[in-house]
Amino acid sequence: MEKIKGLIDAPFTPMLANGDVNPAPIPAYAAMLAKNGLKGVFINGSSGEGYMLTPEERILLAEKWMEAAPAGFKVIVHVGSCCLRESVRLAKHAAQIGAWGIGAMAPPFPKIGRIEELAAYCETIAAAAPELPFYYYHIPAFNGAFLPMTELLKAVDGRIPNFAGIKYTFESLYEYNQCRLYKNGKYDMLHGQDETILPSLTQGTEGGIGGTTNYNGRELTGIIEAWQRGDLETAREKQNFAQAVINVICNYRGNIVGGKRIMKLIGFDLGPNRIPFRNMTDDEEAAMKRELEAIGFFERCNKF
Amino acid sequence: MEKIKGLIDAPFTPMLANGDVNPAPIPAYAAMLAKNGLKGVFINGSSGEGYMLTPEERILLAEKWMEAAPAGFKVIVHVGSCCLRESVRLAKHAAQIGAWGIGAMAPPFPKIGRIEELAAYCETIAAAAPELPFYYYHIPAFNGAFLPMTELLKAVDGRIPNFAGIKYTFESLYEYNQCRLYKNGKYDMLHGQDETILPSLTQGTEGGIGGTTNYNGRELTGIIEAWQRGDLETAREKQNFAQAVINVICNYRGNIVGGKRIMKLIGFDLGPNRIPFRNMTDDEEAAMKRELEAIGFFERCNKF
Amino acid sequence: MEKIKGLIDAPFTPMLANGDVNPAPIPAYAAMLAKNGLKGVFINGSSGEGYMLTPEERILLAEKWMEAAPAGFKVIVHVGSCCLRESVRLAKHAAQIGAWGIGAMAPPFPKIGRIEELAAYCETIAAAAPELPFYYYHIPAFNGAFLPMTELLKAVDGRIPNFAGIKYTFESLYEYNQCRLYKNGKYDMLHGQDETILPSLTQGTEGGIGGTTNYNGRELTGIIEAWQRGDLETAREKQNFAQAVINVICNYRGNIVGGKRIMKLIGFDLGPNRIPFRNMTDDEEAAMKRELEAIGFFERCNKF
Amino acid sequence: MEKIKGLIDAPFTPMLANGDVNPAPIPAYAAMLAKNGLKGVFINGSSGEGYMLTPEERILLAEKWMEAAPAGFKVIVHVGSCCLRESVRLAKHAAQIGAWGIGAMAPPFPKIGRIEELAAYCETIAAAAPELPFYYYHIPAFNGAFLPMTELLKAVDGRIPNFAGIKYTFESLYEYNQCRLYKNGKYDMLHGQDETILPSLTQGTEGGIGGTTNYNGRELTGIIEAWQRGDLETAREKQNFAQAVINVICNYRGNIVGGKRIMKLIGFDLGPNRIPFRNMTDDEEAAMKRELEAIGFFERCNKF
Repeated sequence: MEKIKGLIDAPFTPMLANGDVNPAPIPAYAAMLAKNGLKGVFINGSSGEGYMLTPEERILLAEKWMEAAPAGFKVIVHVGSCCLRESVRLAKHAAQIGAWGIGAMAPPFPKIGRIEELAAYCETIAAAAPELPFYYYHIPAFNGAFLPMTELLKAVDGRIPNFAGIKYTFESLYEYNQCRLYKNGKYDMLHGQDETILPSLTQGTEGGIGGTTNYNGRELTGIIEAWQRGDLETAREKQNFAQAVINVICNYRGNIVGGKRIMKLIGFDLGPNRIPFRNMTDDEEAAMKRELEAIGFFERCNKF
Repeated sequence: MEKIKGLIDAPFTPMLANGDVNPAPIPAYAAMLAKNGLKGVFINGSSGEGYMLTPEERILLAEKWMEAAPAGFKVIVHVGSCCLRESVRLAKHAAQIGAWGIGAMAPPFPKIGRIEELAAYCETIAAAAPELPFYYYHIPAFNGAFLPMTELLKAVDGRIPNFAGIKYTFESLYEYNQCRLYKNGKYDMLHGQDETILPSLTQGTEGGIGGTTNYNGRELTGIIEAWQRGDLETAREKQNFAQAVINVICNYRGNIVGGKRIMKLIGFDLGPNRIPFRNMTDDEEAAMKRELEAIGFFERCNKF
Repeated sequence: MEKIKGLIDAPFTPMLANGDVNPAPIPAYAAMLAKNGLKGVFINGSSGEGYMLTPEERILLAEKWMEAAPAGFKVIVHVGSCCLRESVRLAKHAAQIGAWGIGAMAPPFPKIGRIEELAAYCETIAAAAPELPFYYYHIPAFNGAFLPMTELLKAVDGRIPNFAGIKYTFESLYEYNQCRLYKNGKYDMLHGQDETILPSLTQGTEGGIGGTTNYNGRELTGIIEAWQRGDLETAREKQNFAQAVINVICNYRGNIVGGKRIMKLIGFDLGPNRIPFRNMTDDEEAAMKRELEAIGFFERCNKF
Repeated sequence: MEKIKGLIDAPFTPMLANGDVNPAPIPAYAAMLAKNGLKGVFINGSSGEGYMLTPEERILLAEKWMEAAPAGFKVIVHVGSCCLRESVRLAKHAAQIGAWGIGAMAPPFPKIGRIEELAAYCETIAAAAPELPFYYYHIPAFNGAFLPMTELLKAVDGRIPNFAGIKYTFESLYEYNQCRLYKNGKYDMLHGQDETILPSLTQGTEGGIGGTTNYNGRELTGIIEAWQRGDLETAREKQNFAQAVINVICNYRGNIVGGKRIMKLIGFDLGPNRIPFRNMTDDEEAAMKRELEAIGFFERCNKF
């Protein structure tokens, strides 16, 4: 199977002030991401508040992203949910509209306790879109599925033909690398934490999915470019800058809340978050803006 | 607001062998529960695999339970989900069909971290069915919402007019009692662990919601009856028996899996569980049956 | 083996202002506890900051409590530590000085992960004082040893002859009762949470070890007395009062910090806590005093 | 303050078959470590079962390591314990015998909950050896002290003059790097996970403390050497090999148990572990040997 090279973006879901999904900005959003070096999008995931959308909204968003995607721009649709039948429906739809691939995280409820449970879950979804690559999205801090990923690979190998790899959003570069080394790189291991792209590159990483790429994609893709041309100093500087940006959003409830608001600050308002997220106040927004100015963010951020 | 006296049952969702929801057994199910002393049902909750059902399935089940409920038999509809808009839709539907009340647990994703997030979540749902009592369903072991319930009561008091109380499925009888004592019993605190009904009665508990009441309701309601007539010995024996039954289901992946299979053993097959639950094998079923026979379960269980 | 009836107190360790252990108050302390209905002491445990004492200090304290104990007043010496050889030394010393029994919690480091590890740990300590009853002190919230206690009983039964029972400081009254029922009450299960004595009595509890008994022992022993004479209303009122007292100490870093300072407020200053505990400020002490006055504590507390 | 370059080893504590500490092998041990590229030792830490030793044993070991250390070979004495007074005693002793530095992890009991508690703990120990650099040993998976290390640096900066840095044994390379960047590298951040040395080097890491360096030190120091001369392929191969070795010990209860037994397999028997560790059986040892042979370990391991 084709492996992803470069960075895929996990977009936010544009919403109106009343919280309705607003597909209008998607074409400009897709164009901006492509312009700033991103290779595609992983939609309706955690950054996109996918679990908080109705199935109909998720379907609408998938269609709009497909329409808006420039040539060669990959659209991967996250179809994970607590209800496997809903996930199957979303996976079939993704295949129908010609998405590049699908992905699913473990359901947060019931909490997954065994590899066999997770494998059965992935198997059912993957089988609903057998022509598309399926990525498991490993983000245990969000859903409690603290299971060993090397064991998942063993469980799905030979059982799920279109299992493509893992979006790995966890701190263990050791486990990540062991997954990479499984059968000499059989599976596509996508790095999933923007704060450690450079360390991960030493292990041979070639692709990843980012959340802060929405507004800081030039610098993050620049880490990989600098590394590939042997310019460690530039790569390190850009990675340190990326961490400085992440330091700021950590002060404002993380990427889903703080990061979505940064989009407004760079001139592309994507609206509020859904409850139970607490939207940022105007004072918080002003304070965050000052923190970002202090690190020179607005000179280096994504451009339209 | 009226407080619930006695025990409400959290029913399993009947399914066909292919996993489709099967409403056919519901009338007999409701009649059986009423006959064995239960005062109502809390449907589409954790025992009912509510999170694993589509919204349409949840709506169908609510309607069928309403049709089947005998006079005075309370139907409380669990409407919690990761998607607040879906929960609102389900709450409105519950009100339309005349349900007695609604309930919602905290969403497992995103994980609730603050009382304010939880209060906003409850507020939005409760406001969608303002004529119905709203119960918060506290089950942190399942969804990670380990928040202090006394703080939740303070947060909703004066803010959510139809906040009725809490289905409290957690081990702290101390916190449970502090909630009971809040403003001299302003809120209806429903005990939610069948293994400790008797200890809870000492604190003044009058109502609860059970999961093992599906098949062991006579004994569990018998605990309360014995206590109320001052017969501690009988109450204790029945509580010990109830624990013995729970010991068995703990050997078979708990009530959702093991308990649902007990229904088949008492002559009322409700079908399989949904993935990611692992259904019991025939060997497991036979072993469980032997364990239940050893404690004399089939003489004391619910009767049709 | 003899089972403990009534409540044992877990005393604080008296210290001078400079943090040195101060044995001087121990005779008066022992007399006060006996006068207020306590049946003995469990020394050098968590309330006594046992892990934060040197072995020499623990030995000194054991000797002083033995000297001060009135006739029939049980002295149980907690000898748990991270260093098993130190625990063995303390156990032998306890036997030499004629202590009534010994106890040990699981070592917090290395974190116990298996019943076999815990059984070997208990076995080695118990064998160092073979004539004394040995109590395992289950307090997983403090040391991370979240292991099933019914499995521990099975593992030690027939292997540790002087294993007497468990001081059970955890919320699960279900597991506690299952331990009680093991082989028809073979082991002495001591209730270990002052906030739920009354609920526990319904299961047949006859003894316990308290931490708030240091200052609220009259009310806590009163719960048992009222229950035994069939006066549920009084028992409930006293249990609710005990919870109200615990509500206060929870505002001041719990019993080890807040409770130790209450001793000063009732006229028996036991000095500071050791680092890393943060001692209460004067302002905090004054605020705590007001909270205690508001619930009428000083009329009902232990008397000298 | 001087920063550590290269790798320091965390040695196992040699024991006799009866579990007594056995200082006899220490001179040969020190010479072997120096010969294989290690720059010093961090003794009586987690690999050394420090918490499971009596204070007298810890003192004896410190003296023996000081006597055995070759010129320029750093001896850092871990003095952390649950009892601060014991830690102070050990710190003073380390200073008296001329140790290069001291270190302490957070006490596992009582569990540290606040930075202020941890800062007071470190301050007291560091003040007992004011001429020596003090390293905080961050290993939250072992002691539950999951606190932000950037906050610790802020808390100790200007308060603990001899606070040298942190032995960072946790997965977050992001937090590790943020600590490195604090005040342009004011503190010495020692990498503490042998499985991710190479990724960490991209951030500027120059020193670390290893546990598998006891038997795999040539390869681990080789990672740094290869990186420094720009040979990424060799560095990556050696890091992958180091992970393969770690994969093996993870099958045998980790480095403290499995790694200590590897010492026997390379001809340097250091005896058993202390309870509650479960020593490896002969069968386990044989199986582990086969796994190590399969990866060619015995050709690449440390040599005497």
